[in-house]
Amino acid sequence: MTVRSTRFRQSVIRTVLGLASVYGVAMQPVDSAFAKVVEVSMTAVETKLVVDGEGHTYDAWTFNGQFPGPVIRVQEGDEVVFSLTNPETNGRPHSMDFHAAETNFLEHYKEVRPGESLQYRFKAKWPGIFAYHCGASPMIQHIARGMMGAIIVDPKDPKALPKADREYVLVQSELFKDPDDVDGMFDRKYQHVVFNGSVFRYDPVHSKAGGDFLDAKPGERVRFYFVNAGPNNVSAVHPIAEIWDDVWESGNPANHTRGVQTQLIPPAGAAILDMVLDNNDGVYPIVTHSLTDALRGAIALLKVDKDARQLPLMPFVTPAK
Amino acid sequence: MTVRSTRFRQSVIRTVLGLASVYGVAMQPVDSAFAKVVEVSMTAVETKLVVDGEGHTYDAWTFNGQFPGPVIRVQEGDEVVFSLTNPETNGRPHSMDFHAAETNFLEHYKEVRPGESLQYRFKAKWPGIFAYHCGASPMIQHIARGMMGAIIVDPKDPKALPKADREYVLVQSELFKDPDDVDGMFDRKYQHVVFNGSVFRYDPVHSKAGGDFLDAKPGERVRFYFVNAGPNNVSAVHPIAEIWDDVWESGNPANHTRGVQTQLIPPAGAAILDMVLDNNDGVYPIVTHSLTDALRGAIALLKVDKDARQLPLMPFVTPAK
Amino acid sequence: MTVRSTRFRQSVIRTVLGLASVYGVAMQPVDSAFAKVVEVSMTAVETKLVVDGEGHTYDAWTFNGQFPGPVIRVQEGDEVVFSLTNPETNGRPHSMDFHAAETNFLEHYKEVRPGESLQYRFKAKWPGIFAYHCGASPMIQHIARGMMGAIIVDPKDPKALPKADREYVLVQSELFKDPDDVDGMFDRKYQHVVFNGSVFRYDPVHSKAGGDFLDAKPGERVRFYFVNAGPNNVSAVHPIAEIWDDVWESGNPANHTRGVQTQLIPPAGAAILDMVLDNNDGVYPIVTHSLTDALRGAIALLKVDKDARQLPLMPFVTPAK
Repeated sequence: MTVRSTRFRQSVIRTVLGLASVYGVAMQPVDSAFAKVVEVSMTAVETKLVVDGEGHTYDAWTFNGQFPGPVIRVQEGDEVVFSLTNPETNGRPHSMDFHAAETNFLEHYKEVRPGESLQYRFKAKWPGIFAYHCGASPMIQHIARGMMGAIIVDPKDPKALPKADREYVLVQSELFKDPDDVDGMFDRKYQHVVFNGSVFRYDPVHSKAGGDFLDAKPGERVRFYFVNAGPNNVSAVHPIAEIWDDVWESGNPANHTRGVQTQLIPPAGAAILDMVLDNNDGVYPIVTHSLTDALRGAIALLKVDKDARQLPLMPFVTPAK
Repeated sequence: MTVRSTRFRQSVIRTVLGLASVYGVAMQPVDSAFAKVVEVSMTAVETKLVVDGEGHTYDAWTFNGQFPGPVIRVQEGDEVVFSLTNPETNGRPHSMDFHAAETNFLEHYKEVRPGESLQYRFKAKWPGIFAYHCGASPMIQHIARGMMGAIIVDPKDPKALPKADREYVLVQSELFKDPDDVDGMFDRKYQHVVFNGSVFRYDPVHSKAGGDFLDAKPGERVRFYFVNAGPNNVSAVHPIAEIWDDVWESGNPANHTRGVQTQLIPPAGAAILDMVLDNNDGVYPIVTHSLTDALRGAIALLKVDKDARQLPLMPFVTPAK
Repeated sequence: MTVRSTRFRQSVIRTVLGLASVYGVAMQPVDSAFAKVVEVSMTAVETKLVVDGEGHTYDAWTFNGQFPGPVIRVQEGDEVVFSLTNPETNGRPHSMDFHAAETNFLEHYKEVRPGESLQYRFKAKWPGIFAYHCGASPMIQHIARGMMGAIIVDPKDPKALPKADREYVLVQSELFKDPDDVDGMFDRKYQHVVFNGSVFRYDPVHSKAGGDFLDAKPGERVRFYFVNAGPNNVSAVHPIAEIWDDVWESGNPANHTRGVQTQLIPPAGAAILDMVLDNNDGVYPIVTHSLTDALRGAIALLKVDKDARQLPLMPFVTPAK
């Protein structure tokens, strides 16, 4: 699964997309003995994606053909070498803004035109969970159409956070029926709010078809890396019939709160939220408790069962057709 | 005021409603010497309530005939035995979701049909202030129509929080003129935002009639258990001419901030907010400083006077007619 | 720049307005040897102000003729003696509500009619950054039209916060095209969201004309005193290509979080946000990441350059014409 990035060689990058969209982005640690360098390559893919259980498609703009983009995971202190390719078959410029980076805005977050590519390096200085997104104009549309995702920076100190038994990434966003209606995005006229790019993606009860449970086993500490991609709304993340045992704002171990029922997550903000399960089977819905948003699609059901499947960090995300 | 709950015997439960709606819910500690078990009984009551000082009524759905429902108060570690009765005279299913509970969602938060009843137990594991609400479908409507309230879980350690001289519960919610307009609830088309179920409930200045002050004495530490029931909006709780000396997110002693001017409270979130008064008489308005919401009804006036009345935790809440 | 306030002598106060609007309000420390008393005088000025780079004017209501009002800066424990003058040439009452004050609401925050004046004292008990605003009715309009600003209360302990190399005050607010449309303010029908009273005030890229950079030098710790004046919206403050090294809610040293990507600031709330720059030149946009608000005008560009100008706390704010 680690594939060295090859700038300008889109055919190679495309080859890995099928796997990358399920298991994560192409990444290769280099020189891990002393100073770890991680190469991350992404391709801007303008494509149609299925965004609900009924087969409705959406004219998405994506990183690597998936909505949200692949989860990036590095360690505090790592050097990330990032490459963005915008194939000449695309219709518009794209770019990449990592909230985990402290870097040169003008040089690195600039728009990459179709047929061009960009590479930059940044050090993942702060541990936590961070949003990433395209910043090309109009940014509100690029995010709404799917160009956003999550980057985890694991703390260098392995004891900075309690050990999680299971981990998931949830990326919340507002879904606008007409992806060309930028005015509607300004006016907050969204139809759905989704976790990981699909209406009731993890809620087989509310989804007419296509919803899948998230799984966990009794007694586990389940960690959610929650990113709110917006583009506009605040999220209010609540686990029904559970309480967040531990919350870390931006995922930083220094920002610890406990016994939290509902956590506000800003648009383009993020947090780590831990839930320690008791020893019984059950189902725990995770929602944004701004109910108009929950009931439009932002409900995920965590099914707790001793035969729980081992799922990837961001399971069942729709790849490009 | 402690009345043993009697499942399926609605007549008994109804008898206590008059008192319960003023002084709190029927509760009885059992076996308090070793492991405290608290029985809590509520009845779903679909009724008309007066929601402002002008006598306008609202087709409310309530717990125990009051809006918000009665304040539940237990101690960290207590076992709560909860009974919900939905009388057969009601028109629809109801349910109960306690944010203080870690419990079996499918079994315990399920909808209870008219003529049926449900009982479940949960341990109040986390100290703090938590929302509760009906989760029957459409949940946004059941909350908007009044089926929500507050449960306080006092910390086991009596020194976990500074001793308060006086305590109040404030439950904020959006009030929709047409209680059947679920689409309007999705579109955030509320007319009022209220504390404890009535427009300017604690603001005799803005209320044309019927507003009452909250009272306190000079020098007191006044504690507000603040629940934002939503269903949609974030609250921004600010005391005019005062500053929150101490704030605890979700009411957990571990989540302490100080000298806070305005505290965000998520929909379906809560916090404890303390105000230490100086030694002078005065009036302090408590508002959500999202001003469109404050000016629609979410202003409470705390009157500070040496002759302050001793009021209940959630005073003057309108009972069923 | 320290000018003793002279109540009822508007001509004197007006004389200092030109300077005050650039460098801050008229303030004079008195008796600083033992107990510091700071006199602060403001005049309510109803005037036209330019609110963008294209010369559009706005019928503003202001403190001292500027939007936002002048930055007040005192030290924890100081006694502030505040005077508000409402000249008889004005059309309506005004008032002053300092979020840094614990004071007598009825006496001190009352409306001052044209031709009248008011003086009151308060002790700046809590360190931090606080909003101030006019509270005259309808408050939502008085804030929207410009009567708000920031008061900094520096901690008594000089080591309570790390030393900043450079400091700015940013006051966010929603700008309503029609300043008489109070209903539109209730309905959140704003056209722009601005920092310090002008569309893209600190963004020469997006502003057609008139935008100016904020400046800093490589390696500096830049401190933002951020006030969200609302009147309605939550802000989600994010530095693009940077991370907030340190955040203090309400600016209180006790409320410290670290490595925060996006900080929620309530309407009428505030925070101190520090960014420690690396040793390179660059540009860092500060935005509210609720993108509909950012793209309507709430972007500030911090230009990092070894030749950075030394700018005032709240630079380039438009004075009265």
